[in-house]
Amino acid sequence: MPKDSALPSRNGAASPGKEPRTARGRETLRRLLDAAAAEFGERGFHEASISGITRRAGTALGSFYTYFDSKDSIFSALVTHMSQSVAAAAAAAVAPGSTGVRREREALAGFLAFARQHKELYRIIDEAEFADPDAYRAHYMGTAKRIAARFDESVAAGTMSPGDNEVRAWAAMGMNVFLGLRFGVWGEEREPDDVAAEAERLLRDGLGPRG
Amino acid sequence: MPKDSALPSRNGAASPGKEPRTARGRETLRRLLDAAAAEFGERGFHEASISGITRRAGTALGSFYTYFDSKDSIFSALVTHMSQSVAAAAAAAVAPGSTGVRREREALAGFLAFARQHKELYRIIDEAEFADPDAYRAHYMGTAKRIAARFDESVAAGTMSPGDNEVRAWAAMGMNVFLGLRFGVWGEEREPDDVAAEAERLLRDGLGPRG
Repeated sequence: MPKDSALPSRNGAASPGKEPRTARGRETLRRLLDAAAAEFGERGFHEASISGITRRAGTALGSFYTYFDSKDSIFSALVTHMSQSVAAAAAAAVAPGSTGVRREREALAGFLAFARQHKELYRIIDEAEFADPDAYRAHYMGTAKRIAARFDESVAAGTMSPGDNEVRAWAAMGMNVFLGLRFGVWGEEREPDDVAAEAERLLRDGLGPRG
Repeated sequence: MPKDSALPSRNGAASPGKEPRTARGRETLRRLLDAAAAEFGERGFHEASISGITRRAGTALGSFYTYFDSKDSIFSALVTHMSQSVAAAAAAAVAPGSTGVRREREALAGFLAFARQHKELYRIIDEAEFADPDAYRAHYMGTAKRIAARFDESVAAGTMSPGDNEVRAWAAMGMNVFLGLRFGVWGEEREPDDVAAEAERLLRDGLGPRG
């Protein structure tokens, strides 16, 4: 295995049997994925074209087919790649040893920053509901499972109250997705830190009347 | 104004200048909207056709153009209609005089029941992001505004703690949308009442460790 096998999103992104074998190949694949994010994000799945992707990437059409079989296959690869990138951005924002509701706030802040930097994120993931339903479902099932695992760990550590962590994880994920849509993609008039702090208060104490 | 002007979703659904003037016309319009929900829900916006809609509705093609200008216009009317129907279903599930977090649980239970009965709901609203972005945004902005107004009222009544109700409303809406997706549309293995009860606990008390 190459030493960068820790980044499966790059090597695993090509169509089966078309994985790049060289650093230069991986760089081209990466450029094609970045170009695909811009092309699908701006034009949508139906209007997007392979020639639009290669033009943005500055590669020859032949390079596209070296790594991908079709527009569908690069779209699927892109959804998986973005799903992994979101997870990585949230994980990177969590301080070592962080737990409980504080960790959820950190992950949300990381996600909000990612959504602001990659405004095409929602359009691409959301369009997967129609263009690649399996990838769409895998994205949300995987994200909810990760959140539920964090909750289980926090409950075990005593930093979160016990409860139905599957339902809670879907609730928290929905919260994050819509806060990212409203305050990351649609408008930047609110500070991400303020949004994350309010979400943390909701997750920690709820909205019930005090004392 | 006709005496049923309290139902703007029916009369207001036709293309401008094409509002039905008779009870029979309103019934035909309603049949076309129900047929459109099935056609767009099953086939998606791109594959859906006007002839598919009139076939499902059992009406002549001419009837379609009596009320709508195009496939785009009936899709937009349908999104508005479903948005209003969701709001009505949630409102109808709220007991008279209910307030605070309890009211949110009742509204969520009503929404979950609606999502189970109308599994095409998500596909249609979600596809509006691409086929009618203004209607998509109006749906979520309107829903969040309604939730924030309920929160403001509850805070004033002392049944909810004070806080940033705009951020809270977007968080609660996202929670509802994803609980409806997972436990309404994708799978029915969980009881809606249990899901709503867990959401109520989260909203009331949060997930922080107990005292």
